[in-house]
Amino acid sequence: MDFKKRAKISYHPVVKAIARSLKAAEVIKPRGEVAVVVGVSGGADSVALLLGMHALSQRRGWGMRLVVGHVQHHLRGDEAEADALFVEDLAKHLGLAYERRDLDLREAKNIEEAARRGRYEALGEIAVQADCVWVATAHHADDQLETVLMRLLRGAGARGLRGVAKVRSLVEGVKIVRPLLGVGKEQIEKFLCETEQDWREDHTNADVERWRAKLRHEVLPVLKEIRGDAAIKAVQLGDRMRGLEGVLQDAVAEVIENDAREVDGVFHLPRDRARQCREIVLMGVLRSLAMLKGVDSDRCGERELGPITKSVRDQQGGMRQFELYGGVRVVVTRDSVLISNN
Amino acid sequence: MDFKKRAKISYHPVVKAIARSLKAAEVIKPRGEVAVVVGVSGGADSVALLLGMHALSQRRGWGMRLVVGHVQHHLRGDEAEADALFVEDLAKHLGLAYERRDLDLREAKNIEEAARRGRYEALGEIAVQADCVWVATAHHADDQLETVLMRLLRGAGARGLRGVAKVRSLVEGVKIVRPLLGVGKEQIEKFLCETEQDWREDHTNADVERWRAKLRHEVLPVLKEIRGDAAIKAVQLGDRMRGLEGVLQDAVAEVIENDAREVDGVFHLPRDRARQCREIVLMGVLRSLAMLKGVDSDRCGERELGPITKSVRDQQGGMRQFELYGGVRVVVTRDSVLISNN
Repeated sequence: MDFKKRAKISYHPVVKAIARSLKAAEVIKPRGEVAVVVGVSGGADSVALLLGMHALSQRRGWGMRLVVGHVQHHLRGDEAEADALFVEDLAKHLGLAYERRDLDLREAKNIEEAARRGRYEALGEIAVQADCVWVATAHHADDQLETVLMRLLRGAGARGLRGVAKVRSLVEGVKIVRPLLGVGKEQIEKFLCETEQDWREDHTNADVERWRAKLRHEVLPVLKEIRGDAAIKAVQLGDRMRGLEGVLQDAVAEVIENDAREVDGVFHLPRDRARQCREIVLMGVLRSLAMLKGVDSDRCGERELGPITKSVRDQQGGMRQFELYGGVRVVVTRDSVLISNN
Repeated sequence: MDFKKRAKISYHPVVKAIARSLKAAEVIKPRGEVAVVVGVSGGADSVALLLGMHALSQRRGWGMRLVVGHVQHHLRGDEAEADALFVEDLAKHLGLAYERRDLDLREAKNIEEAARRGRYEALGEIAVQADCVWVATAHHADDQLETVLMRLLRGAGARGLRGVAKVRSLVEGVKIVRPLLGVGKEQIEKFLCETEQDWREDHTNADVERWRAKLRHEVLPVLKEIRGDAAIKAVQLGDRMRGLEGVLQDAVAEVIENDAREVDGVFHLPRDRARQCREIVLMGVLRSLAMLKGVDSDRCGERELGPITKSVRDQQGGMRQFELYGGVRVVVTRDSVLISNN
């Protein structure tokens, strides 16, 4: 890469945004050294992320070692193999280590979900083997807006509207960071054009996630016309919801700590105390206790817990019993709420 | 109205939904009597609301007296006058009292906002004069989805995403209720067609609120294609956000009660205690205290308070000072946060 092109990259707003994110997430610390796997599919977003991270890794004092991780899902025939070669070439051109993992999703029931899980698992494995403590992925502001809208349509609360996290744990000792979350899609493609960097188009996106594609092509352009920074607003919303979800969890933890007790493997909660809780807090308390007894988090939402909180809060005295998944039972008596596992 | 048509109306799902809402909001109480102003513009939504409320008022034991309230904004020339006559005729046909108020918005800076305020003021006035304790307005689920999306695009937190309230106070002794909030637009128009009831189309909607119209015509149809009950999900989201906002306010109130004190008109908050708060709670505390000192609620959002919470939470010891609107000053010292009004 010639000097002029490198300088152009290094001071580009997208690269500056990546730098800010990496510092805020404490991936980069003063005088520290860090090894990061960059997940690169070959699409515009991840190529931009790689280019930006590479430019930063060359800055004096940044001490960032990069490994390019590519996951071949084997879902799109020859095109996918060409993507893998493209990423391998790019890594070589930048002088970076390249690691590839191949998934076998032929037996998966929900292909989309299995691909997602498999991809993160593979990136985590690469990180562990290459002695990296971070995996960087290329989620950006438009992804966040799509996610928030999808969650809204499916009926989300604060937890759902948090969207994609800027930082989260992946496996023991490895965290994921999303340094592009504050950057919009348009800005990313502009960055690649300005730096004359090629990328691979994924022509099957529309088939793999049909609704998401509909949002992307039909809804997002209108929302951005109404409000140019709509995607960034979705990222801010995610941050706020993360804060609110934390406040809710604090309130839930306080009730559990002060008022719930476990006797012979059965959780007891005084019913008058439960009645005083806001409904959303009570639901959180029941949810936490049910999960401690083994119910899956997606099997104790509002649909399952709503009738229970309602019966806790009404004035009836008779005993009522509710069955949750996994053999967990909630009994509402005149004075108590009991959560047990058969 | 003949018997057959009346029966058709009385057991229609839309009327049942209105009945459920009125009971849930305790507008209708067992053996109670109640007087309600129904705000009717002449559009499909408010005509449907009036028709439904009228059918219910005729049910045995409901004891509901209705007054039809129409606000003429004088923004759309002859068409608006024709709307007023249409509503007056409909009220007469149903045997209901009709009250009209005329607004003069020629001097308003923000016409949209002034129209909204003027409308609610007029409806409140009608309620007080006609001895009614409720005003019913025709906001429906699609309105809620639009509102939530607009708020999302403008950058909302839980407070904004609550959307339109099912019930809220209007003036001393008068509350607003929205009995159609759980009903979608499509269902409303179907109801009117099935009961052969005319309504007036507002042809200037698109001009008065351009962005909202864009959402309505270009975004909502796609969202509903993705998820038929998208609008209902937005209503549920509003409920959840209302609950969460309550939890946040509880946390804020607890900090203020336990840790803030007022000395000589200056609020004091120990800085180490402020530091322990989640950022969103600290922001709420500063907001509440600033509002007690006279700052407008829309002049102390994240933009104004973000730099203050940041400085409270950093490790610097020197004194820093922030000016909010209305002469309110926040001073961060080594040990305290002080909020005062000059």
